[in-house]
Amino acid sequence: MGWQKHYLDKLSRFFQIRNLLLRQALAECLGTLILVMFGCGSVAQLVLSGGSHGMFLTVNFAFGFAATLGILVCGQISGGHLNPAVTFALCLLGRECWRKFPVFFLFQTIGAFFGAAIIFGMYYDALWDHPASFNVTGPDATAGIFATYPGNHLTLVNGFFDQIIGTAALIVCILAIVDPHNNPIPQGLEAFTVGFVVLVIGLSMGFNSGYAVNPARDLGPRLFTAIAGWGSEVFTVRQGWFLVPVFAPFLGTFIGVMIYQLMVGFHMEGEVRDRKESTEQETVRLTNVTSKDNSREAVKERNEC
Amino acid sequence: MGWQKHYLDKLSRFFQIRNLLLRQALAECLGTLILVMFGCGSVAQLVLSGGSHGMFLTVNFAFGFAATLGILVCGQISGGHLNPAVTFALCLLGRECWRKFPVFFLFQTIGAFFGAAIIFGMYYDALWDHPASFNVTGPDATAGIFATYPGNHLTLVNGFFDQIIGTAALIVCILAIVDPHNNPIPQGLEAFTVGFVVLVIGLSMGFNSGYAVNPARDLGPRLFTAIAGWGSEVFTVRQGWFLVPVFAPFLGTFIGVMIYQLMVGFHMEGEVRDRKESTEQETVRLTNVTSKDNSREAVKERNEC
Amino acid sequence: MGWQKHYLDKLSRFFQIRNLLLRQALAECLGTLILVMFGCGSVAQLVLSGGSHGMFLTVNFAFGFAATLGILVCGQISGGHLNPAVTFALCLLGRECWRKFPVFFLFQTIGAFFGAAIIFGMYYDALWDHPASFNVTGPDATAGIFATYPGNHLTLVNGFFDQIIGTAALIVCILAIVDPHNNPIPQGLEAFTVGFVVLVIGLSMGFNSGYAVNPARDLGPRLFTAIAGWGSEVFTVRQGWFLVPVFAPFLGTFIGVMIYQLMVGFHMEGEVRDRKESTEQETVRLTNVTSKDNSREAVKERNEC
Amino acid sequence: MGWQKHYLDKLSRFFQIRNLLLRQALAECLGTLILVMFGCGSVAQLVLSGGSHGMFLTVNFAFGFAATLGILVCGQISGGHLNPAVTFALCLLGRECWRKFPVFFLFQTIGAFFGAAIIFGMYYDALWDHPASFNVTGPDATAGIFATYPGNHLTLVNGFFDQIIGTAALIVCILAIVDPHNNPIPQGLEAFTVGFVVLVIGLSMGFNSGYAVNPARDLGPRLFTAIAGWGSEVFTVRQGWFLVPVFAPFLGTFIGVMIYQLMVGFHMEGEVRDRKESTEQETVRLTNVTSKDNSREAVKERNEC
Repeated sequence: MGWQKHYLDKLSRFFQIRNLLLRQALAECLGTLILVMFGCGSVAQLVLSGGSHGMFLTVNFAFGFAATLGILVCGQISGGHLNPAVTFALCLLGRECWRKFPVFFLFQTIGAFFGAAIIFGMYYDALWDHPASFNVTGPDATAGIFATYPGNHLTLVNGFFDQIIGTAALIVCILAIVDPHNNPIPQGLEAFTVGFVVLVIGLSMGFNSGYAVNPARDLGPRLFTAIAGWGSEVFTVRQGWFLVPVFAPFLGTFIGVMIYQLMVGFHMEGEVRDRKESTEQETVRLTNVTSKDNSREAVKERNEC
Repeated sequence: MGWQKHYLDKLSRFFQIRNLLLRQALAECLGTLILVMFGCGSVAQLVLSGGSHGMFLTVNFAFGFAATLGILVCGQISGGHLNPAVTFALCLLGRECWRKFPVFFLFQTIGAFFGAAIIFGMYYDALWDHPASFNVTGPDATAGIFATYPGNHLTLVNGFFDQIIGTAALIVCILAIVDPHNNPIPQGLEAFTVGFVVLVIGLSMGFNSGYAVNPARDLGPRLFTAIAGWGSEVFTVRQGWFLVPVFAPFLGTFIGVMIYQLMVGFHMEGEVRDRKESTEQETVRLTNVTSKDNSREAVKERNEC
Repeated sequence: MGWQKHYLDKLSRFFQIRNLLLRQALAECLGTLILVMFGCGSVAQLVLSGGSHGMFLTVNFAFGFAATLGILVCGQISGGHLNPAVTFALCLLGRECWRKFPVFFLFQTIGAFFGAAIIFGMYYDALWDHPASFNVTGPDATAGIFATYPGNHLTLVNGFFDQIIGTAALIVCILAIVDPHNNPIPQGLEAFTVGFVVLVIGLSMGFNSGYAVNPARDLGPRLFTAIAGWGSEVFTVRQGWFLVPVFAPFLGTFIGVMIYQLMVGFHMEGEVRDRKESTEQETVRLTNVTSKDNSREAVKERNEC
Repeated sequence: MGWQKHYLDKLSRFFQIRNLLLRQALAECLGTLILVMFGCGSVAQLVLSGGSHGMFLTVNFAFGFAATLGILVCGQISGGHLNPAVTFALCLLGRECWRKFPVFFLFQTIGAFFGAAIIFGMYYDALWDHPASFNVTGPDATAGIFATYPGNHLTLVNGFFDQIIGTAALIVCILAIVDPHNNPIPQGLEAFTVGFVVLVIGLSMGFNSGYAVNPARDLGPRLFTAIAGWGSEVFTVRQGWFLVPVFAPFLGTFIGVMIYQLMVGFHMEGEVRDRKESTEQETVRLTNVTSKDNSREAVKERNEC
């Protein structure tokens, strides 16, 4: 075993990346890959089996638990966003640096791209066996396995609204789950709870256009389908629908952050701040000497990002 | 980032509400909004998709996990009742002040109203696309998306009994979950367990009239439908059915509290009291001096509400 | 509030039962009532709605989570057996006193009886509305809502074997969950895990005769149906099938206990004993004085039951 | 009770096995038996009931939660692998000794064999009642209850790829769950999380050939069917398909280990090592005396396997 341990150690040293941001981006990439692989895989199973091996509920379960597993894989390293909208929300609230946003967005989209590619490879035979192998529209269309397309009843305006509401609901729930001043669940169960949020959104907001609520999850697989054989129609169909799940979620994020902060967050923060300030005043009176260090630390903290 | 932090801090101070009851009422409002948004959303998905994107099981899951998420969002602030019947039960047992009851009832109903409004906006196109867009009765009726209506087999008496049993079952389980002397589950998992209770009630008591077991969840969306286009028929249909899910749950709550207390609660409380009294007697004998402070604290506690 | 607290305190003192066994039996009664109420309720919903409000999966979920909730309600007081077979297993292993067995069996059966009665009342209208209201046999039979009946393909011998396997599987899993020397799950999650066991047994062993695996759960509701209108046919049908779910589970319990102990339990216990004995020997050598107290305590422990 | 305790103690001493590897192998055997019994049981229920008592989702749930229960039963003793591919992954990473691999593989296969045998006995009547009792191929084939067979659309190459992807996904998630340097979930919930992984794999990767992703789970039941009446066709059908779920998972394991280590594992390990080394250097400078013991311990640790 000595030989094996030695070799593993050498491998580990060779491949180790010391840049924190790159490591986090790689982790986000793997997490989003897992989310899309399992999520789109379940849609593929539903569509390609013609309903014998799945139904809409299984897709909801798969996306929910896939989010859980994706977060578990990368949560300790990068926070487990898996979604540019989540990164955006945390940046808005000053809990993540803004420079992380474009990097995470890019790597999340890359992860989603490869997640779709794995499912494409896995169900390659089944896809060719399907009556409408590479159709973007029509009753047997398979493009919907990878990216989202609006239902026939949906106008572009309602679709935009749908994505805004879905993302706002997601963000309100996620903010409640990760709020440092309102921590309702045991540490380590955040991933499971976020999975439940994704599951519930699928159960109740999935009929209009398949609840993307995630620009990376939608854009990455759509790019893949454009390359893999479905062609540019995936972008042009329904007056450029593909822009909706890319842009609407950010607006929804903003609204979700506002709602949560106005109805819950600001008051909790304020209470914590009030309590801290009154404690600080007492502390200052008692030991005036240490206050200098405190202010120095505060400055340091402010400059961290 | 300094600029952003400064601005966020200013916003937080501007919007901070310091009145505890108002803050709790707002939190209840948001929690109930989430419960009704996800819950009624799943019914909308089931009805409007004609069964392709849902079934009764998905509605049960959605209401169960929506209750979990609603409680997670507001539980730390207001206790996460989401249901006037739960507030009523805790008031009956002297664990909440009676003046909270009307305030919570009002804000829970407002939250449910807006939750229904969000789903109405989200599925606006799908609703117009539906063959029976704004029907209150009939096979394709859509009023049942928001409020509950009795099945054709149900008489008013049996419906009243149905709501009493459902609420009593809910209250017995919730009392067991939050009983301070009989605490069976790890802290932080109460919300999930209550979600399971709501899920199970839906699985086994949902056939008669759709298991409202919550006056606010039923009244708020019913008011919304009356305004949004279904008209006053939502109140008059089936000899004033709408009164059943408003009043029966409170009777059910009373029965549930009695059953739990008679079969489990009183004996546990008694045991704790017996143990405490015997300890107190010993303590009194040992240190007669401190007893004055204890009685003072007890008086203070009694006057808190 | 002072008045209310005073009155509640008086009520509590009036109804308090100080006999431990009676309190435990009452708790078991309530727990089994909840198990049967939710479990049989889901079967009623499935049968009476003709499949529109349920399917076999919802019955499995309902029984699983009903077991969880039943255990949560009474687990801290009585251990949350809900099943004479579980009581029997713990008695066999010397973890519960034998005199608890008949008392728990009786109260569990009473609880199951009233659980069935509640569901009967709740779905009274729906039952009369059903084409085969009070049939014990036939395609639309409703007796299966309350007690279990074998499928048409099943012989009595295979049915007996079916109940033995089901109970043995249940007992092996429960013993692993509550084994004091092999404690794999966080405290407080036992109830949820047992719920998963019941769910899985339903998913994989429910086709033959509806997985009673619990004499009380089957006998109590069967007695109720005999009284409530289905008549004595519930006992005589299929050459006295009703005896199988009453007696086979105990045999299955014995086999399950043996399998678990032979493959896992005895070795774990032995390891703990080995370690303890070697520690004791060292302790004895060091402080020979305290050994007398230890032996006294051991005698006391042995006489507890 | 004294007599019972004495007898139990004697039994325990008589059957106690002190060899660690044999005890672990027995535990793995029981765990895999539970996995296959519940998993294949749910397939049997689905196939033999003709869809009335199950659907593909119930099979997914059953395999997922069966994995959870199997791990709970044996996890404290043997680690709860239940799958030679998992044992292989941990050996590859130097966390388990290589000599465990063949022993575990053998006992896992034996456990799977007997798990299938129990289900065969349980559904014996139902099997004979089925129109195609012992068919390996055809629309009503029952061989698929026990072992996996490829769908009609699947080529051998795609099937091989399918098993590789499925196992790689399983291994990436399991490594994240048990990574000592990246421990995202509360202790004791690993079994549940692995169950979710198996569930999600079934929801999204089950259409091609039934997601064996486990050589023992497939080989053991296949051997049983060959003996029990389906004959040698179970090995010869589809150009020796049975070799795919035996060998592809190990290749998938290797790929999964590489992906996880390259994208997450090596960097986390490296960080821990970096921190340890810098601490060690400081420690060495401070207390040069204790270093000898440390190195001795390190040598001991390396020789453990």
